[in-house]
Amino acid sequence: MTRYDVVALGESMMRLTPPGDLRIEQTRTFDIWVGGTESNTAVGLSRLGLDVAWFSRLPASPLGRYISNRVAQYGVDTSHVVWAQDERLGIYFHEKAQPPRDSEIIYDRRDSAMSRMQSADLPRDLFRSDRSRLFHITGITLAISDAARDTAREAMRLAKAAGWRVSFDTNYRSKLWTGAEAAEACDHAMSLADLILCPYGDYQVMYGDAAPEEALEDLAARFPGTLIVMTLGKEGAQAITSGGNRIRQPAILAGEVGRIGGGDAFAAGFIYAWLQEGDAAVALKWGAAVSALKYTIPGDLPLVDPEAAAALVAGGAGGGLIR
Amino acid sequence: MTRYDVVALGESMMRLTPPGDLRIEQTRTFDIWVGGTESNTAVGLSRLGLDVAWFSRLPASPLGRYISNRVAQYGVDTSHVVWAQDERLGIYFHEKAQPPRDSEIIYDRRDSAMSRMQSADLPRDLFRSDRSRLFHITGITLAISDAARDTAREAMRLAKAAGWRVSFDTNYRSKLWTGAEAAEACDHAMSLADLILCPYGDYQVMYGDAAPEEALEDLAARFPGTLIVMTLGKEGAQAITSGGNRIRQPAILAGEVGRIGGGDAFAAGFIYAWLQEGDAAVALKWGAAVSALKYTIPGDLPLVDPEAAAALVAGGAGGGLIR
Amino acid sequence: MTRYDVVALGESMMRLTPPGDLRIEQTRTFDIWVGGTESNTAVGLSRLGLDVAWFSRLPASPLGRYISNRVAQYGVDTSHVVWAQDERLGIYFHEKAQPPRDSEIIYDRRDSAMSRMQSADLPRDLFRSDRSRLFHITGITLAISDAARDTAREAMRLAKAAGWRVSFDTNYRSKLWTGAEAAEACDHAMSLADLILCPYGDYQVMYGDAAPEEALEDLAARFPGTLIVMTLGKEGAQAITSGGNRIRQPAILAGEVGRIGGGDAFAAGFIYAWLQEGDAAVALKWGAAVSALKYTIPGDLPLVDPEAAAALVAGGAGGGLIR
Amino acid sequence: MTRYDVVALGESMMRLTPPGDLRIEQTRTFDIWVGGTESNTAVGLSRLGLDVAWFSRLPASPLGRYISNRVAQYGVDTSHVVWAQDERLGIYFHEKAQPPRDSEIIYDRRDSAMSRMQSADLPRDLFRSDRSRLFHITGITLAISDAARDTAREAMRLAKAAGWRVSFDTNYRSKLWTGAEAAEACDHAMSLADLILCPYGDYQVMYGDAAPEEALEDLAARFPGTLIVMTLGKEGAQAITSGGNRIRQPAILAGEVGRIGGGDAFAAGFIYAWLQEGDAAVALKWGAAVSALKYTIPGDLPLVDPEAAAALVAGGAGGGLIR
Amino acid sequence: MTRYDVVALGESMMRLTPPGDLRIEQTRTFDIWVGGTESNTAVGLSRLGLDVAWFSRLPASPLGRYISNRVAQYGVDTSHVVWAQDERLGIYFHEKAQPPRDSEIIYDRRDSAMSRMQSADLPRDLFRSDRSRLFHITGITLAISDAARDTAREAMRLAKAAGWRVSFDTNYRSKLWTGAEAAEACDHAMSLADLILCPYGDYQVMYGDAAPEEALEDLAARFPGTLIVMTLGKEGAQAITSGGNRIRQPAILAGEVGRIGGGDAFAAGFIYAWLQEGDAAVALKWGAAVSALKYTIPGDLPLVDPEAAAALVAGGAGGGLIR
Amino acid sequence: MTRYDVVALGESMMRLTPPGDLRIEQTRTFDIWVGGTESNTAVGLSRLGLDVAWFSRLPASPLGRYISNRVAQYGVDTSHVVWAQDERLGIYFHEKAQPPRDSEIIYDRRDSAMSRMQSADLPRDLFRSDRSRLFHITGITLAISDAARDTAREAMRLAKAAGWRVSFDTNYRSKLWTGAEAAEACDHAMSLADLILCPYGDYQVMYGDAAPEEALEDLAARFPGTLIVMTLGKEGAQAITSGGNRIRQPAILAGEVGRIGGGDAFAAGFIYAWLQEGDAAVALKWGAAVSALKYTIPGDLPLVDPEAAAALVAGGAGGGLIR
Repeated sequence: MTRYDVVALGESMMRLTPPGDLRIEQTRTFDIWVGGTESNTAVGLSRLGLDVAWFSRLPASPLGRYISNRVAQYGVDTSHVVWAQDERLGIYFHEKAQPPRDSEIIYDRRDSAMSRMQSADLPRDLFRSDRSRLFHITGITLAISDAARDTAREAMRLAKAAGWRVSFDTNYRSKLWTGAEAAEACDHAMSLADLILCPYGDYQVMYGDAAPEEALEDLAARFPGTLIVMTLGKEGAQAITSGGNRIRQPAILAGEVGRIGGGDAFAAGFIYAWLQEGDAAVALKWGAAVSALKYTIPGDLPLVDPEAAAALVAGGAGGGLIR
Repeated sequence: MTRYDVVALGESMMRLTPPGDLRIEQTRTFDIWVGGTESNTAVGLSRLGLDVAWFSRLPASPLGRYISNRVAQYGVDTSHVVWAQDERLGIYFHEKAQPPRDSEIIYDRRDSAMSRMQSADLPRDLFRSDRSRLFHITGITLAISDAARDTAREAMRLAKAAGWRVSFDTNYRSKLWTGAEAAEACDHAMSLADLILCPYGDYQVMYGDAAPEEALEDLAARFPGTLIVMTLGKEGAQAITSGGNRIRQPAILAGEVGRIGGGDAFAAGFIYAWLQEGDAAVALKWGAAVSALKYTIPGDLPLVDPEAAAALVAGGAGGGLIR
Repeated sequence: MTRYDVVALGESMMRLTPPGDLRIEQTRTFDIWVGGTESNTAVGLSRLGLDVAWFSRLPASPLGRYISNRVAQYGVDTSHVVWAQDERLGIYFHEKAQPPRDSEIIYDRRDSAMSRMQSADLPRDLFRSDRSRLFHITGITLAISDAARDTAREAMRLAKAAGWRVSFDTNYRSKLWTGAEAAEACDHAMSLADLILCPYGDYQVMYGDAAPEEALEDLAARFPGTLIVMTLGKEGAQAITSGGNRIRQPAILAGEVGRIGGGDAFAAGFIYAWLQEGDAAVALKWGAAVSALKYTIPGDLPLVDPEAAAALVAGGAGGGLIR
Repeated sequence: MTRYDVVALGESMMRLTPPGDLRIEQTRTFDIWVGGTESNTAVGLSRLGLDVAWFSRLPASPLGRYISNRVAQYGVDTSHVVWAQDERLGIYFHEKAQPPRDSEIIYDRRDSAMSRMQSADLPRDLFRSDRSRLFHITGITLAISDAARDTAREAMRLAKAAGWRVSFDTNYRSKLWTGAEAAEACDHAMSLADLILCPYGDYQVMYGDAAPEEALEDLAARFPGTLIVMTLGKEGAQAITSGGNRIRQPAILAGEVGRIGGGDAFAAGFIYAWLQEGDAAVALKWGAAVSALKYTIPGDLPLVDPEAAAALVAGGAGGGLIR
Repeated sequence: MTRYDVVALGESMMRLTPPGDLRIEQTRTFDIWVGGTESNTAVGLSRLGLDVAWFSRLPASPLGRYISNRVAQYGVDTSHVVWAQDERLGIYFHEKAQPPRDSEIIYDRRDSAMSRMQSADLPRDLFRSDRSRLFHITGITLAISDAARDTAREAMRLAKAAGWRVSFDTNYRSKLWTGAEAAEACDHAMSLADLILCPYGDYQVMYGDAAPEEALEDLAARFPGTLIVMTLGKEGAQAITSGGNRIRQPAILAGEVGRIGGGDAFAAGFIYAWLQEGDAAVALKWGAAVSALKYTIPGDLPLVDPEAAAALVAGGAGGGLIR
Repeated sequence: MTRYDVVALGESMMRLTPPGDLRIEQTRTFDIWVGGTESNTAVGLSRLGLDVAWFSRLPASPLGRYISNRVAQYGVDTSHVVWAQDERLGIYFHEKAQPPRDSEIIYDRRDSAMSRMQSADLPRDLFRSDRSRLFHITGITLAISDAARDTAREAMRLAKAAGWRVSFDTNYRSKLWTGAEAAEACDHAMSLADLILCPYGDYQVMYGDAAPEEALEDLAARFPGTLIVMTLGKEGAQAITSGGNRIRQPAILAGEVGRIGGGDAFAAGFIYAWLQEGDAAVALKWGAAVSALKYTIPGDLPLVDPEAAAALVAGGAGGGLIR
């Protein structure tokens, strides 16, 4: 019976992207990537050295296996995936653009196998006290369907009951729900969490305008005794510990190759260091470092080398050519 | 007001195929093709020189435009396409295999924009006596949803009312419905048609085992006075005219590059010659020639040159290198 | 009989470009693009919603059809193209370079089918008062051959006679003629035009050094009562209306993916808004917006979304990731 | 503590192949495949549903991880891989050719990390009676170096001592050693094996000319009481059971896409059925089926679907298009 | 001063081909090949071990250098190429097709730099007795322009005057001239040649129908005392020596990857062995072997290995996988 | 007997690089480049118009020919290459990264054919006074093996004895040896050189910290009467002539496409101008210009146009689009 450091649950999709700078209408081929916020974070945690399981509900088809294979390849345990007959895989199309053109994401994820996951699908024997230290989930799983939301809530309850810590990333998506809907669902989830990750922009759309510091304080007031981390984009990140300490971390500049998944990489870096070192300030550094490295990597998955992240955490500059 | 020779209605999808002989699980890219039985035939008819319009219901998005652009590129009028907000495009995945492995198609077309087309979406002013000579539709449009079936039936009625001829290809798909379901819906459609195209295999699954000649006779008995064409794969094709003449046409052997769309190419060749020359025997030759040429062309669309088809119809062998 | 908003005439070529940053000597493949100044503008106008026809003289071959298909794909009517037997298609090779290396264009367009177009090839029944609102042509068509120049002049005369407006873009190319030759030929064309588009650099090579403002005033003096637009590169654009108003428009910065065709995109944006709104200041904004969007799009064609252009015209910043 | 059905040990290399039919001197890119006889068989066994571990000695670098990731992706446990600092990965170049040109393999595997594996590197706690049912290894591991041969022998001894069955495939490679050298080393290995797989060609080069039946009888005489399987290329395969029964199995014809790894796929099919069903005749059928399916799949790994293999075993013909 | 075995003169072009089986209208990229009958043969001779120079007239541009680089890469001396300012490179487009569709070649070679080569451009100091053993040229150089024909004739005269042997391949191209035109020009060239290579099909189009044997006898009568080789496609080849001996050689079957250049490869094999061994029967074997190997190699150039050719000449079957 | 301007000796390897920004673990293909410091410089010198020979010891295989072909293609004489049976080619893997991630090079060059080159392999008849003007070699050849170091030293002695000038570039590689080792071996080599090229970073690692000016003075003191050039990265370069003149040259900024080989390109530019013009200040300008142009070119080879370099030397800015 394998023991994990982290267990994560959520949807992972096939991302289809035109190569280079082509518009969708111009392309004759799609590059295929695998992406989903929780699986992205799971892969990051595995690459950093933790034992990680991620599961989801996937169609029993080459498409579903495509997702599972790619996640498993980087060391994540996918043996708890629930395989569904005759269902579809969530897909998203991504058209990358240089300014002043907007990059665009077209979701085609409605009625995916994961959106139909039921609480009964949860692997009960996995949620035992000795099988993991932390459960990770995000607001996207709450957003995709009523069934997935119920399942996510039940999973969080099971994890709490097993004595695991719970981390929750709000991960607001305007194409999935409104700020008001998100706020309602996330409020409940955050009340169950030991670690809340909430981008500043998510706060604003869910709770309204506020300066970054006010936003953080407001979350701390809403969810007292919880470790709260708020990413601020180019401004870095800030946190308030369960004990009430305020910490700030500047961002680490990075050449932008793969913006998608940067937040999930931050979560991986933060959770890794928080679990291993228990220090939120150090964890913020790891979040910034893993996120910066992710920006240089194509695709959704944070295929970072732990040595490279550690060097950045230690203050290294990087960017050279070693030969 | 443009006048067409042929108007066709049906779903056209994005086909995603791994390059070369890769399995889906192995590929990192998909080649993108555009395919749909009626649009395939429409493109073939346009390449042969007719004025053709094809329409469908497509999402108002880069994905929907992808379909429309590719069809329009080859000269087909797409101005009657009905654009739908916030709907999805039908997709299908195709994994090509050498024997003894089966090639596989994975449909992801449920709830596509076309499957939600209503009779009310039909462009009424198009269905006027002076705007076309023939309306073409297939059993797939009957199969994909109740709404599409109702729409297809209404369109056939409108075409008949306008005095156009109607051609109907059964085009059975085992992943969409059963033989019994197909038989019920196609019976009605065939009763409205002036030209029935029915592959021998379709007959068998819909009406049960019979020798090819018996099958043709049975259809002639069911739909008397109708021109009935039955393709027989490597055995060629046979037909029975509205006047009761029996005709046979051997197949033309072809290097197999693009099997998909071969039947639609046959339909294009047949309809073209039937409209232009009014002779079913000549039309069978054109069907065989256009279908053979299609087998040598990647993708779903029969991008045949009329001169090449005419040369085969005239008995040429082809396959040389002209320099 | 279709009615157009804009009719354009000119050469469109096959552009062959090494992928990525490869030099021609390094490449094993060429990416194929379709480009020609008038067809570029025609596609832009069609994408913005106008009814547009473009025609040219093209070889009746797969190469000629390649051009026509790609232009038709984006909604431009190509039914007036003149097909020529046994002639060649204009080709150009493009080697993109980072500074301090020059990007290079190698024309191989001599004796192209279009360069041999005669006045007699012009579709006379197209040039009727009720079939279009504007005729667009550029200096390149004057430059490529005597025959093309005569044809262009006759087309402008026919368009004027039909009561259409005429727009003319000087589009100087140093590899096709000298400044003095261009000045002589363009003088005549500009005297027929209702709208003159003249890049500042073109002015300098044709008429000699002058400050931008002086250059604009000089053109206004030469062609009184004509709307004159002068693009200034990174400095934006300026115009003087037929009524003598001076207007300036700053450039909109853009990530440079596809520099080629930026001027043609500006023309598309300007002509679109000028035809639809009749306000030169608004039209300058559209020119700047469509040109900036074009810079982010590979290839020669301005495949811009009207909504994206409208958002920039309205002052939006763009460049985000919408999900 | 995971329990496996099969544990395999051996070298897996990076295969570099020009795309399509290009010669090495012509190519500008290499396609990358992962291949090694034991890992090929391991992946096949995992795809068929068994719990499989494969291990090797790999460089602790992106190149070593490349191998491990690809094998893990298809469900094989790679947690026992021994990671080596500052060592190199075995590489091989493959130039595919149509007749009458020979396909060519250029090995660059000398001094690979695996060739330096020591007996001391073997994970002792893995070789326990309750952790696996069978150990699989081939003659290649004996051939690549003295160290690897010693390690292989020790591993076979450990497996026997743990009560596992041992399967051994001779897998002669003329570029690694002579027939005499192979015979000497394989004799010892075969004497330890419960299942011997020996291609007819290997027999000939090791023991001299003999008709296939004689060759099989000779092996049975040399290694009495052992299950011996001899593949015969297009002639299929023959076996003699430990109890002395002779069995023959014809080959299943297949379109040749990926010849490399066909023998390893046969081994996977045979071992799978032998372990699961215990019947050598059935196992020969599975060997033939999995091998035939492998021939249709690019790369070295037998990414077969168990349903497809079962259908062939049951006598299906395959090769259709299911839609 | 380098001494050559063979000097060849002729046009070499850039060949643009869609990848895979795509039609030109479908492709977004062209594969680039370098091809020209004399340079093809020159590369073959160089690969077989002779010292070879090839020259032509090429544009002084990246396109011209593209040709020269590719030919030089395989060891052919290109230092005698005549570089021309502001001229164009001959191009040809190749669309490969499976039967019953014809493969097609579209020449775009009119007014190429080579077609404007003058006798005065010939490097006089090259044509000296001690600098080569043989001069090779083909009918294509006679066909492309009057200037090239005059230059070719002068070069043949210079070669004869220097005491070199002259080989001439008729190489008829229906897109360049008629049979009658070819016959007139080739008659003169063949009267100067020591070795005539004439495909049977060329004979028929130039001199009329005759059985193969009659055709060969007729040529022998027209050009007495000359070594005459006639290739017969799948029927192999036949020759008549200067001394009147008749020889036949069957073809060696080959998987068809690159049909273009097969005849030039035959010429390379024949000339190589004739020069080195002086035996026409052996030379026919080498012609057949090098031609068969060329069929397995993409592109126009016969990148054969001398060992592989020698093995086929010695009667080997080839087609295995050596590992 | 050809006479060269420059003869160079050293290892050239196959470089394997993932396309675009992919990490090695992500890629399915490698782009293939050919690189080696001396062959890079040799190609640059050839492109600038000099007669250049480069030689090495290469495996007699398609891999060895790959290297030789690519170098020969750009006009470098490779006829002195020593071909070795059954040896391996040096390979290196290159993973390009955006900051803050380090780009990485993984050498796999141990035991390459070149590393086993012996003094006895040197082509003695090449090292004659009338066959070259300069011999070029770098510290890498000293570093790769004892045999190569001995061979390099012998070659330098032979070149000196023949009266050629000798240029030596330190080219320190931290993955091949330590600074102390390099200093010892390079001291000897520099004492034989007429021209020393030493990057400032190399100086520091070999001799310890010093300001750039001090470093240059120190080298001048160590190797009096020698022309010493020290590149300073973005700070340009400085030199001290054999007569003691100090010169500085700013760098020319360049878009970074191909950083690798920039130093070798500098050496090519410097040596070219030094040989042709004999002026170190002019040579520094050429070094800066060729190096800047190289930065814009993918791969290791400085495929610069002499006209472009001359324009930069003359003070041009470059970076435009000429059409």
